[in-house]
Amino acid sequence: MLRFTRDFAFEGTQAQQAIMESAFGTVSKEYQSGKIGYYNLPNKSLSLVGEVEELLKSNSLLSSGAITDIAVIGIGGSSLGIKAVDSLMASKNVNTRKLHFFENSDPVNITGTLAKLKKESTIFIVISKSGGTIETTSILKTAIAYFGLELDGADSERVMVITDKGSSLSQFGGHYGLSQFNIPDNVGGRFSILSAVGIVPLTLAGYDTQALLDGAGAFLTRFFNQDEQHLLEKACFIYENSAEKSINVLFSYANDLENLSKWYVQLWGESLGKINIYKKNVGLTPIGLVGAVDQHSFLQLVIEGPKDKTVTFITVEDFENDLTIPDISLKHIEKTDFINGNSFNTLINAQCDATKESLLQSNVPVDSIAIDKIGEANIGAMIIYYELLTSLVGAMLQVNTYDQPGVELGKVILYKKFNN
Amino acid sequence: MLRFTRDFAFEGTQAQQAIMESAFGTVSKEYQSGKIGYYNLPNKSLSLVGEVEELLKSNSLLSSGAITDIAVIGIGGSSLGIKAVDSLMASKNVNTRKLHFFENSDPVNITGTLAKLKKESTIFIVISKSGGTIETTSILKTAIAYFGLELDGADSERVMVITDKGSSLSQFGGHYGLSQFNIPDNVGGRFSILSAVGIVPLTLAGYDTQALLDGAGAFLTRFFNQDEQHLLEKACFIYENSAEKSINVLFSYANDLENLSKWYVQLWGESLGKINIYKKNVGLTPIGLVGAVDQHSFLQLVIEGPKDKTVTFITVEDFENDLTIPDISLKHIEKTDFINGNSFNTLINAQCDATKESLLQSNVPVDSIAIDKIGEANIGAMIIYYELLTSLVGAMLQVNTYDQPGVELGKVILYKKFNN
Repeated sequence: MLRFTRDFAFEGTQAQQAIMESAFGTVSKEYQSGKIGYYNLPNKSLSLVGEVEELLKSNSLLSSGAITDIAVIGIGGSSLGIKAVDSLMASKNVNTRKLHFFENSDPVNITGTLAKLKKESTIFIVISKSGGTIETTSILKTAIAYFGLELDGADSERVMVITDKGSSLSQFGGHYGLSQFNIPDNVGGRFSILSAVGIVPLTLAGYDTQALLDGAGAFLTRFFNQDEQHLLEKACFIYENSAEKSINVLFSYANDLENLSKWYVQLWGESLGKINIYKKNVGLTPIGLVGAVDQHSFLQLVIEGPKDKTVTFITVEDFENDLTIPDISLKHIEKTDFINGNSFNTLINAQCDATKESLLQSNVPVDSIAIDKIGEANIGAMIIYYELLTSLVGAMLQVNTYDQPGVELGKVILYKKFNN
Repeated sequence: MLRFTRDFAFEGTQAQQAIMESAFGTVSKEYQSGKIGYYNLPNKSLSLVGEVEELLKSNSLLSSGAITDIAVIGIGGSSLGIKAVDSLMASKNVNTRKLHFFENSDPVNITGTLAKLKKESTIFIVISKSGGTIETTSILKTAIAYFGLELDGADSERVMVITDKGSSLSQFGGHYGLSQFNIPDNVGGRFSILSAVGIVPLTLAGYDTQALLDGAGAFLTRFFNQDEQHLLEKACFIYENSAEKSINVLFSYANDLENLSKWYVQLWGESLGKINIYKKNVGLTPIGLVGAVDQHSFLQLVIEGPKDKTVTFITVEDFENDLTIPDISLKHIEKTDFINGNSFNTLINAQCDATKESLLQSNVPVDSIAIDKIGEANIGAMIIYYELLTSLVGAMLQVNTYDQPGVELGKVILYKKFNN
């Protein structure tokens, strides 16, 4: 369960009602027309879970129990969401296979990740909507050479692809007879975590992806039934203040939430940072912080710096960990003994509350999301919450939330550097 | 060696000369008067390196070779810098002992880190300027209970403290007869990496801290000899554009630079986010990105979003890693074959260049720092470069660069929560 609270003022004037209704209408149309596909994923991807369970039996490497590691070769939308879920769930020790990520062209990083893997115990999943991502194809070739993978021979069951139907990567998979899962055409990379992109590797790793999808689906249904109106109000507040408060901080009070923040940063930054229909450069800058660590770092700026930020706190109500500060008093450092006998769970959430109160006193707009416990269903709800929020703010800003034209130029320049 | 290039326009008008001269004067006075202590650290801390080498002989746990792990208990300025250097150097495999960090009140994180350590092979270093940091003292007590540490008995050589002379933590260390190193009073937490805070754990870990200090000292000398004028010009540019371009992005093209970014984020955000002498909320928002990963995430926002950002690129010219994209052509994904036969080192730096060019075409102000190779001396120079830049911009913004009054309120609120 997620609990949402809002500490910023929102009147709900007629003008604001009109903005919210219009955005709700746009998003509903995107959903119903099938123009934008991510809304359908919580339902549509349920069948994928069964397909992967079939694969666990039919793929002889997987069914033999030889596979302990899954190497994901993918960048941006093809890795951030998987990492976010994996990081949150890792400490639960429910996974049966370990995920590894190849997501940068950094040679030291690739070398280090390669060294952790043994061919015999590893399955490789190559993820790219198009197949034209230079890091992805280059790392795939490197893995082929490093491990001596025989795609059309002994290792045809060891490599899988996740891509758009008909893409060059799809044709590559077809040519070598590799297992293949497809991403719906109308689902963009950064909205694809609940498609095959996330569901296949996460199911193979042993996570309960059915619960992930069900959690997302339940929230989506409530939203379209107008039972999660706070989402519209938050979108409207962010939109109306977007010129003055152009920075949205996500302050997560748990180390394992850091990768969810990175997923949010891509979703928010890349979706909303656009030239809008009036040819204006608009957008909101996302920042992910980790509490209580960043109370000792970034907080001073939020409190005394320019009033250009809104802050959303995420807390975990029950860490399911009872580590307690022992009732020990040490000579000369008795000043912090007042916390003795409390759990760290209590401490970190009290730190969050204290920080929140201090921000409110400094007139920083604040809202909060409390997760009762870490689990797949709650993570699914968080994912769809942020996707819906992004779509709503995008509709209000009048941008195309789903494209990324600004990054094409760099790719053209890179290509030219090697083809002159 | 570091190479600095600037791709933003800077005229050096008379007014700008005056701003730069004034800030240089302020910083020189801080240095010469001894009011601010970090400028002296590259010189002053050299003797610490020898002291730690003595300790390696005199501490029976260290001299016996039993110690393979160093647990650092410290938050913010007492951990970020150490982590930054350790992350950059880790892949070189030159360290002799592994560093572990306790830096959050997150129970799952603390439990996980405790589980990695064995008492027999671990030394604990407690770092806090005052001794009043609630996470630090709480984690220390937890480690004492978890490992059954006897501070005034068998384990008095296993725990050390790094703190201000005369602080409560210093008195605690004195009471139990623990090894102690002091941070000069006039050195703030976020400027303390080249004091005992960084030098002691990094020397114990086996890094060449003499080279770190020498690299920092050489850069500092050149700056005060006015041989690094680009630093003043950059500070002036950032200051003059601080209202419109209030976000400074550090785009590092190497995974291992991520923790240096986090160190920079604290330094920049906490030093400059202030109420200035005219009672105005000023400051600049730092953001750390990792290339090429974030080309697939944040870049769209920088290019098409609001023109509120400057971007500094950091590259590693020579990763000392010759991992090469094999000359393999895979059916249907031949489109990226143009990169075959090149090293990943070449690819990632070409990606950086291409991104930089695309930003320039979008009128985003850009500058670059190229590190020839990763090594202690270059890291030292990077550290002092960013500290000096922070001091210069702080002087121009007319803030107190070295305090953090905004975070006190949250501490008071937290205390009240447990004392009612």
